[in-house]
Amino acid sequence: MQTTDTIVAMATPPGTGAIAVIRVSGPDAIPLVARYFEPVKAKNLTDQKTHTIHLGHIVKKNKPLDKVLVSLFKAPNSYTGENVAEISCHGSPYIQQQILQLLLDAGCRMATPGEFTLRAFLNAKMDLSQAEAVADLIASDSEASHDIAMKQMRGGFSNQIQQLREELLNFASLIELELDFSQEDVEFADRTQFNELLNRISEVLKKLLDSFAVGNVIKNGIPIAIVGKPNVGKSTLLNALLNEERAIVSNIPGTTRDTVEDQINLGGINFRFIDTAGIRETRDVVEQIGIEKTFDKIENAKLILFLFDGLDIDTDELERIKNKFPNKEVLPICNKMDLLSKDDKEQLNQKIPNLIFLSAKHKEGITKLEQKLSSLVVSGALSGDATIVSNSRHYDALLKALEEIQKVKEGMEMGLSSDLMAIDIRQALYHLGEITGSVTTDDLLGNIFSNFCIGK
Amino acid sequence: MQTTDTIVAMATPPGTGAIAVIRVSGPDAIPLVARYFEPVKAKNLTDQKTHTIHLGHIVKKNKPLDKVLVSLFKAPNSYTGENVAEISCHGSPYIQQQILQLLLDAGCRMATPGEFTLRAFLNAKMDLSQAEAVADLIASDSEASHDIAMKQMRGGFSNQIQQLREELLNFASLIELELDFSQEDVEFADRTQFNELLNRISEVLKKLLDSFAVGNVIKNGIPIAIVGKPNVGKSTLLNALLNEERAIVSNIPGTTRDTVEDQINLGGINFRFIDTAGIRETRDVVEQIGIEKTFDKIENAKLILFLFDGLDIDTDELERIKNKFPNKEVLPICNKMDLLSKDDKEQLNQKIPNLIFLSAKHKEGITKLEQKLSSLVVSGALSGDATIVSNSRHYDALLKALEEIQKVKEGMEMGLSSDLMAIDIRQALYHLGEITGSVTTDDLLGNIFSNFCIGK
Repeated sequence: MQTTDTIVAMATPPGTGAIAVIRVSGPDAIPLVARYFEPVKAKNLTDQKTHTIHLGHIVKKNKPLDKVLVSLFKAPNSYTGENVAEISCHGSPYIQQQILQLLLDAGCRMATPGEFTLRAFLNAKMDLSQAEAVADLIASDSEASHDIAMKQMRGGFSNQIQQLREELLNFASLIELELDFSQEDVEFADRTQFNELLNRISEVLKKLLDSFAVGNVIKNGIPIAIVGKPNVGKSTLLNALLNEERAIVSNIPGTTRDTVEDQINLGGINFRFIDTAGIRETRDVVEQIGIEKTFDKIENAKLILFLFDGLDIDTDELERIKNKFPNKEVLPICNKMDLLSKDDKEQLNQKIPNLIFLSAKHKEGITKLEQKLSSLVVSGALSGDATIVSNSRHYDALLKALEEIQKVKEGMEMGLSSDLMAIDIRQALYHLGEITGSVTTDDLLGNIFSNFCIGK
Repeated sequence: MQTTDTIVAMATPPGTGAIAVIRVSGPDAIPLVARYFEPVKAKNLTDQKTHTIHLGHIVKKNKPLDKVLVSLFKAPNSYTGENVAEISCHGSPYIQQQILQLLLDAGCRMATPGEFTLRAFLNAKMDLSQAEAVADLIASDSEASHDIAMKQMRGGFSNQIQQLREELLNFASLIELELDFSQEDVEFADRTQFNELLNRISEVLKKLLDSFAVGNVIKNGIPIAIVGKPNVGKSTLLNALLNEERAIVSNIPGTTRDTVEDQINLGGINFRFIDTAGIRETRDVVEQIGIEKTFDKIENAKLILFLFDGLDIDTDELERIKNKFPNKEVLPICNKMDLLSKDDKEQLNQKIPNLIFLSAKHKEGITKLEQKLSSLVVSGALSGDATIVSNSRHYDALLKALEEIQKVKEGMEMGLSSDLMAIDIRQALYHLGEITGSVTTDDLLGNIFSNFCIGK
């Protein structure tokens, strides 16, 4: 990982805007920009203080290219921990490209995706999980996913992991020390205290692992399948929820063949609704494939909305779905409520408890359904300051660390020799270190940062 | 024009990027941002110096929304001349929208297009033609159009106009003073000097007006029509020039019916090539419409490339086009040179002087044609420090000013009374003032700035 060169990239989205920002980082960032910068008030850019802004022109071969502001950040007080100069130029693609070209010709290197943040990590401005949170933060498109990323960026659980890892490292040293004195049968590491630490670590890891299921759906949206017999109004319900004409609606049963998906944000959480083909016996080959796909989709859904036609309630079908997917929560919904009398409704409510009435076509009862969904699915998982793991790399490392910790515990109980136990402890340390970046490989870093956008 | 409120807008292009910049300007800009800003190092944002940058969090209801940098610019040392705070946040659309919403809720108003630059003009940070150049600069996509905008932004001809206007204003006052003493028949204004000034103004205006033709084509691209009989390879030439498969090419004569247009940048200037339907007698109604359109396009072109098939030179057609468009420059080009012997070429060259040989299909001779075009069309218009008018509003004002100046000159020669002459001078002053913005109306300003992007 070389950080001796100076890198450059656009930091703002591509396209035309009022301004654009070009970011330069590395040992020569400030003198390189200074070479092409003519300040409005005579001064030497390289002599200026950190966190100051300077007005002037970027000049190419004696011709002013643009009037710009240059912001200076001096190492270590910058995002990357290196010297950084940011050029705010006019937001024309032509100017952006010209200034970028000028700096590349001057010896800057085009930054790879995430390279600024990689340098921030390498210069210990943030740990690895915080660096990963930067990409999550930029990608987050709902309040919930934003909150998870923000917590992680501010330290989140990695501080806790780091602290537990240090305690474990301490015991590991003591146990490894015992090996040097193995003839004398001494115990430097207090076994009771060590056991207590292992229990503490297990507990924290289990809690974090449990949070992943929630973290994952929040990050990717909570999948909800809309299921029911043909022509009960599934596509109409999807359109009502999305408030747009997303799925093709007709009164011909079997209109929907491909599953149609779309996202909406309810109370800060993304829900991914999946409109499915109506379930029925059919000889139409394409429709049959659609129905099979429906079952796949239900398998991946977090919740099933089972839609009835108010005039044609068939509870057998509901039972079939419940039996076919015993682990899924199924929400029974009665559509076309506008066609039902008060008595009808009462009768239906007795037959199927907690039945939700609505009219997808007239958009009645939709808000109530939305509220129900928010409360059902989230159910306090987001409330309070619960730490949530949403990154599958962290999940893997936590899982492996927990396995090793369990092995150490079992070893203790079985009276395993210190040298064998030390190996398992080292493994646990390794996996915990993977989260914070105390342990890294170039491959791992390459993998993580290649998912970033350029300029970050 | 009220500038007592504080305005906010995104200054960077929409979309996801490493960072985004939110610009706030107005009397309350800094305290408004400070209300939601928690600095990393304890300090009061409102007490900080101009042109400094501060790291901290934007906090909404005790929850950190994002880690940001806030740049401060204090009046009058800012783009708008007002207090300005710029928030550099992470480039997630969610965060951008949340921070924007926070500031709107706090009492900021969403800026209208160009409102930051409008305020810069109203606060005398730039004159009107400089303000207009900002929009041109952002829109410019070639070296030539960029240079014109940059010159205009740095003062350009508006400084000169402003100075001439002041001299004229001086004479106007003296002549109007004469009216007060009309009984006494005095002349405060030296008629010889005044005449000399009028000549100087006329000369400058004429030169600027002449430059508009060049400025206009540079700004909008130089239109060049590719013309010729069916199937001589016009579309193939267009594709070769564009270096992509833009037009449908087949060996069926009459393939091109719609005119196909596209731009390329040659030596810093945009050329707009127009592929036209082949000219021939046809009974196909659609093709006939295409041929009629061709003549319209030729009418608007700056230059005609007349393409021959090397194996079927028909000079009559070339003469017809030359006669039909006597004011257009026509460049004869012989395609399919790969099928010609050296003798063929020499013969053709005698028949048609300055014939350019190329093979569009094999992309031979294309570079030579491009060089020819650059040198022919630009012909020194761009070289040196020539001032170029590219804005049609300026052209109109210059034209009207020149008309009034001519009237004054004629009045002088005819010995017109001072009071009548004064009216014409005032008119000239008015039109010159329109360029720099010494004279404005709300309508005029509204018109100019509504063409800006938001955030500038």
